[in-house]
Amino acid sequence: MTIKDYLEDKRLAVDRFLDEVAPAAVTPPATLHESMRYSLLAGGKRIRPILAIAAAEAVGGEAPGLMAVACSLELIHTYSLIHDDLPAMDNDDYRRGKPTNHKVYGEAIAILTGDALLTMAFDWISRPDLMKGCDPARQIRLIQELAYGAGNRGMVGGQVLDIQAENRDIDLPALQTIHKHKTGMLIRAAVRMGAIAAGATERQLDDLTGYAEDIGLAFQIADDVLNVIGTREELGKNPNTDAERGKKTYPAFYGVDGARQLADECVARAVRRLSSFGPTADPLREIARYITARKH
Amino acid sequence: MTIKDYLEDKRLAVDRFLDEVAPAAVTPPATLHESMRYSLLAGGKRIRPILAIAAAEAVGGEAPGLMAVACSLELIHTYSLIHDDLPAMDNDDYRRGKPTNHKVYGEAIAILTGDALLTMAFDWISRPDLMKGCDPARQIRLIQELAYGAGNRGMVGGQVLDIQAENRDIDLPALQTIHKHKTGMLIRAAVRMGAIAAGATERQLDDLTGYAEDIGLAFQIADDVLNVIGTREELGKNPNTDAERGKKTYPAFYGVDGARQLADECVARAVRRLSSFGPTADPLREIARYITARKH
Repeated sequence: MTIKDYLEDKRLAVDRFLDEVAPAAVTPPATLHESMRYSLLAGGKRIRPILAIAAAEAVGGEAPGLMAVACSLELIHTYSLIHDDLPAMDNDDYRRGKPTNHKVYGEAIAILTGDALLTMAFDWISRPDLMKGCDPARQIRLIQELAYGAGNRGMVGGQVLDIQAENRDIDLPALQTIHKHKTGMLIRAAVRMGAIAAGATERQLDDLTGYAEDIGLAFQIADDVLNVIGTREELGKNPNTDAERGKKTYPAFYGVDGARQLADECVARAVRRLSSFGPTADPLREIARYITARKH
Repeated sequence: MTIKDYLEDKRLAVDRFLDEVAPAAVTPPATLHESMRYSLLAGGKRIRPILAIAAAEAVGGEAPGLMAVACSLELIHTYSLIHDDLPAMDNDDYRRGKPTNHKVYGEAIAILTGDALLTMAFDWISRPDLMKGCDPARQIRLIQELAYGAGNRGMVGGQVLDIQAENRDIDLPALQTIHKHKTGMLIRAAVRMGAIAAGATERQLDDLTGYAEDIGLAFQIADDVLNVIGTREELGKNPNTDAERGKKTYPAFYGVDGARQLADECVARAVRRLSSFGPTADPLREIARYITARKH
């Protein structure tokens, strides 16, 4: 199976799970559920859930509740996009080629939709039916990881730093701190949660954490590069918005070619972190390489 | 101990816990943590955590992690106030007598502060240090209750219904559905979580759930009445804002006197629900009576 087939296969499984488990659009409060589904089923790459699944496969153990664990990460990611797109934040009109949530449902519903998706992430990873067979102590650990990666010391903390850095002259270490938190911590949580769900040893967890940190950085650099060189069609949103907003990016420090090279180095380092794993970690290896090759 | 002393005593314990466990304002990202503390330590009544503590006392069993459980509810409540006050929602400038979060930190930080507090609630009730001694299976159940009460089928669902009802002619059942979710479900979660933390039997949990539903309604009716008759000093915010916004309230359906009578009936029913409990449930009984007597 090629990595493209693997990603497509897992993406469809994630989409199917999200579609089945998210509340139906006719269930009251219907507007809220419709809005949640609008953003959740808007066709993302599902990279975080796929990383969780691939990490569990790399470890190889039974992982009861893995789909709920994986998809809880997509709920968090989706809520963060909805809030990020709000007029008070990035004020984006398009996302994944469609009007942003607040353009369709209004700002108030968009804020609440984000809140509901965030809360639902913790609902799903604590639901007895979805997590059947998962040891409660392991489940608590998964919840800890999600809260840590998504919260003040993780993603939200990074978003605050990102806002504060707009139109200010920040240096490279400050940029790295922003990205380590804003994108890196949830990717780290995804890989770790998949590994923990499958009963990883501490050694395995350490290696996979290193892998996650490296690809998180590669992912962000690649995103920054795409923002400069991508077209509206490829990105599903307007290109070059970072520069227009005065956001500091990796290409701004290194140039496009330098940034690309840096991303390649991160990918190589990530793959080396998996040296103790056999072929079960091949999807993780391929995903790392795919990050810098993608067009959107 | 009078109920006033009891409430004051527990309120101080909650304030102390929140102050100690919430990240210090100097810890990076400092602005986020400062903003979280600004709203969290703004001197609320702490009624939800106190209800959780009083429910645990009524049951009487050991309740490891009770303060974290109780305070997770205040984190949820505080985040909901911050998001509710935003210009896109209620657009309130004052809360608890102080400028609202977004008036001080701006809208973007206010949104993220709410997101961080919401996430931190799930962090606290899954943290090994704060929940030490709590059985993991029980802990999962507590997390389920919190997610259910706070999310799309609970508080956030009610907020969506509330927004949709503004300036529309809704009937009494619709108003009841709004309040049952918007305020009721988190109060219900508070009482149930306290009871579960203390190892309540199913029978005890049923009785306490009934109590919680009754006082939740009484609380909302009393709030509506206060919004009409309270002064700015008593409320810490502008009075009569509901009518100005075209919000339907209990006094609008029943008149102020009729609404007060209805609240009293709810309180009496709530107290009757506790008939199988002995004196350990006295604080719960007194809290029910206090709801309709308070001035803010």
